[in-house]
Amino acid sequence: MSRPTPLSGFPEWLPPQRMIEQQVLDRLRRTFELYGFAPLETRAVEPLDQLLRKGETSKEVYVLRRLQADPDDPGDVGLGLHFDLTVPFARYVLENAGRLQFPFRRYQIQKCWRGERPQEGRYREFLQADIDVVDRGTLSNHYEVELPLVIADALRGLPLPPIRMHVNNRKLSQGFYRGLGLPDPLEAIRIADKLDKIGPAGVTAELVATGATEAQAKAVLALAEICTPDASFVDQVAALGVTDPLLDEGLAELAAVVEAAAEHAPGLLVANLKIARGLDYYTGTVYETELLGHEKIGSICSGGRYDSLATAGDEAYPGVGLSIGVSRLLGRLFGTGALTVSRAVPTCVLVALPREEDRPAVMRTAAALRHRGIPTEVSPTAAKYGKQIRFAERRGIPYVWFPGEPDSVKDIRSGEQVEADPTQWTPPDADLWPTISATE
Amino acid sequence: MSRPTPLSGFPEWLPPQRMIEQQVLDRLRRTFELYGFAPLETRAVEPLDQLLRKGETSKEVYVLRRLQADPDDPGDVGLGLHFDLTVPFARYVLENAGRLQFPFRRYQIQKCWRGERPQEGRYREFLQADIDVVDRGTLSNHYEVELPLVIADALRGLPLPPIRMHVNNRKLSQGFYRGLGLPDPLEAIRIADKLDKIGPAGVTAELVATGATEAQAKAVLALAEICTPDASFVDQVAALGVTDPLLDEGLAELAAVVEAAAEHAPGLLVANLKIARGLDYYTGTVYETELLGHEKIGSICSGGRYDSLATAGDEAYPGVGLSIGVSRLLGRLFGTGALTVSRAVPTCVLVALPREEDRPAVMRTAAALRHRGIPTEVSPTAAKYGKQIRFAERRGIPYVWFPGEPDSVKDIRSGEQVEADPTQWTPPDADLWPTISATE
Repeated sequence: MSRPTPLSGFPEWLPPQRMIEQQVLDRLRRTFELYGFAPLETRAVEPLDQLLRKGETSKEVYVLRRLQADPDDPGDVGLGLHFDLTVPFARYVLENAGRLQFPFRRYQIQKCWRGERPQEGRYREFLQADIDVVDRGTLSNHYEVELPLVIADALRGLPLPPIRMHVNNRKLSQGFYRGLGLPDPLEAIRIADKLDKIGPAGVTAELVATGATEAQAKAVLALAEICTPDASFVDQVAALGVTDPLLDEGLAELAAVVEAAAEHAPGLLVANLKIARGLDYYTGTVYETELLGHEKIGSICSGGRYDSLATAGDEAYPGVGLSIGVSRLLGRLFGTGALTVSRAVPTCVLVALPREEDRPAVMRTAAALRHRGIPTEVSPTAAKYGKQIRFAERRGIPYVWFPGEPDSVKDIRSGEQVEADPTQWTPPDADLWPTISATE
Repeated sequence: MSRPTPLSGFPEWLPPQRMIEQQVLDRLRRTFELYGFAPLETRAVEPLDQLLRKGETSKEVYVLRRLQADPDDPGDVGLGLHFDLTVPFARYVLENAGRLQFPFRRYQIQKCWRGERPQEGRYREFLQADIDVVDRGTLSNHYEVELPLVIADALRGLPLPPIRMHVNNRKLSQGFYRGLGLPDPLEAIRIADKLDKIGPAGVTAELVATGATEAQAKAVLALAEICTPDASFVDQVAALGVTDPLLDEGLAELAAVVEAAAEHAPGLLVANLKIARGLDYYTGTVYETELLGHEKIGSICSGGRYDSLATAGDEAYPGVGLSIGVSRLLGRLFGTGALTVSRAVPTCVLVALPREEDRPAVMRTAAALRHRGIPTEVSPTAAKYGKQIRFAERRGIPYVWFPGEPDSVKDIRSGEQVEADPTQWTPPDADLWPTISATE
């Protein structure tokens, strides 16, 4: 076969990048678990009718068929790959409601697929890390404060640029548009969401095309300009002179979220009244997150509250969730060379091999080191020691172990070599496992 | 919407099962890294021509298409989901050969998909955990000993039934069949592989149908009956009176693997001359693994050596790998209730909430506990304490923390309650995180 080439939109990392990604995921997972979120995975596929239920993304779904499909097998028709983790989670909650404890907190770290045109920050296959809380019947608003704090805590422990989360409330926008007298408030949300893409003139044109007046379009833009680090947005909205009970509800909810978050993590959240989120299932608080210095890649953590996504008959399971776009975040930071890992392999010690017939003895030395938690490889061949040392050097393995009477171990960075016993010797903590850091 | 139902062949676990699965994966990953295997992930999709290159599984491939596909976009045609992790890995090695260090050791833990008819131990979506070593040009045989030892070490640390690995060598079978004068030795391997499914009479009939004599079929069955815990199979094969240089090569390689493995892990490997593996890319040593007491689910860890899977022009990257069928293994053990986890959530401490207005203070208490690595949740509501304690009980959370002057913490299993400071108190190690064990 000829040498294969990459597939656009399906990123793959080199081993050192994957090591960085894993350490990022370890940090996310540990933080989520420290907050009591239980792990969950759902299957990669959902029935197409589930995936297409909530508009917008329908055109981007990957549909599956077996190469030799049997049209009589119901398992062979109408399946597609999930495009996010929220829709599958809502389905999972409905399916397993009788076996879950509510409120139910879970995290989920999985690939998603969308058949979008690939561009920076947009892939066809990408990794998401989600946290959600769902309850049965009603869901307390305090989770809308807790979730951003969890995300901020998780990311704070990593060598990443700082973040800022922008928060809005769909009730606020929808109520404002309704109070304003717009013919289709939900459509107006979708149009306003495109502000950054099509600009004020574009938004005005699209609103006017739906029957809005120039004055109404101007009010929509005025609302979208409001962005405050505290609850002062409430007065700014009041100054626009629009009233509506849903607007009041949204204002109160958003003020509560921004004020409570400011108490625990000052500067993390800003109320930004132009945030809408493209996905149709959000019904209240919505979030987007900027990676400071890398704003152009778009939001690296988004989500919101969804009150009617998981509903069967009379039973509703309202939820709120946030989703970190791990591939978007790391794709950007790998692209700019912003992250580095201390070595390209997990190995801390290479045990040198004097002669091939020494392999069984050398394997026992390696086993003794591993038994005490030290990542160890045996040299692939009994080449000259200089060649074995270069094998370690090329991979960034810090120590080479030499069998002898007695054994000795050499730090190949400093050249320092000391006598050592594999049942006793321990490397410094900083060398035991690879570590990640921001590139200087 | 109506309540959704499961999709046959696409297993999903409940949160406690997923916690068990994660602990199993953590153990595998840690062991793989202790042996110096670097982490890797490949995309879920491969070009169809790659997937169909090696026969047999072609009929089981899931093909992708975008719901609104563009026939002019080459990214929209001819993609399928991978059915194993070896074919994508071989492609990855070819694609990135210039940026990898050889011999290259990697592990890869990902979902795979096959459109097979679901049955016990066979899913349409399943999780595999693979280790492989590939080299450029030639690959030393010692990896064929090392890989089974890594797998045995990884599984030994888990509360699982013991395993036995059955090993054979394709050169041995192919050389024997050639020396025997069979018309199509490779076809004979495929037929002999079905011995457990179709029985000796079935194998004989199929061989005869390809032009073999009854005497040749008898010799094939005689070879398949040989199974020894040491190298004594060499004499048993010699007694069958067939000679061929490839047979001799296979005998020598298999004897070396079995003898070296016996030195490091007595009883782990047996030479079993009926093992063939269905996949066509194996060229030497092949492995299958029985979970003792659960033999009927089939092999839970399989693999082998492949000398020509990753080849571009003159450059060959021979490899050897083993793949643990995590879904098959855990699906079985979940089905029999063989594994248990100490609680259904990561949470170790529930901080009780006296009144809703105490939430900010209580969140600070929780943060202090988390800061010292103790998984902590705040009570969802300021219900009566009895109700808050029942919230913890239902999830298996062992400790409830009561704010007060001073604070106190109660072990709700024993009822013991002590004064405690969130910056000082630490639970016993055994309670800090959930632990898994074999069900009594």
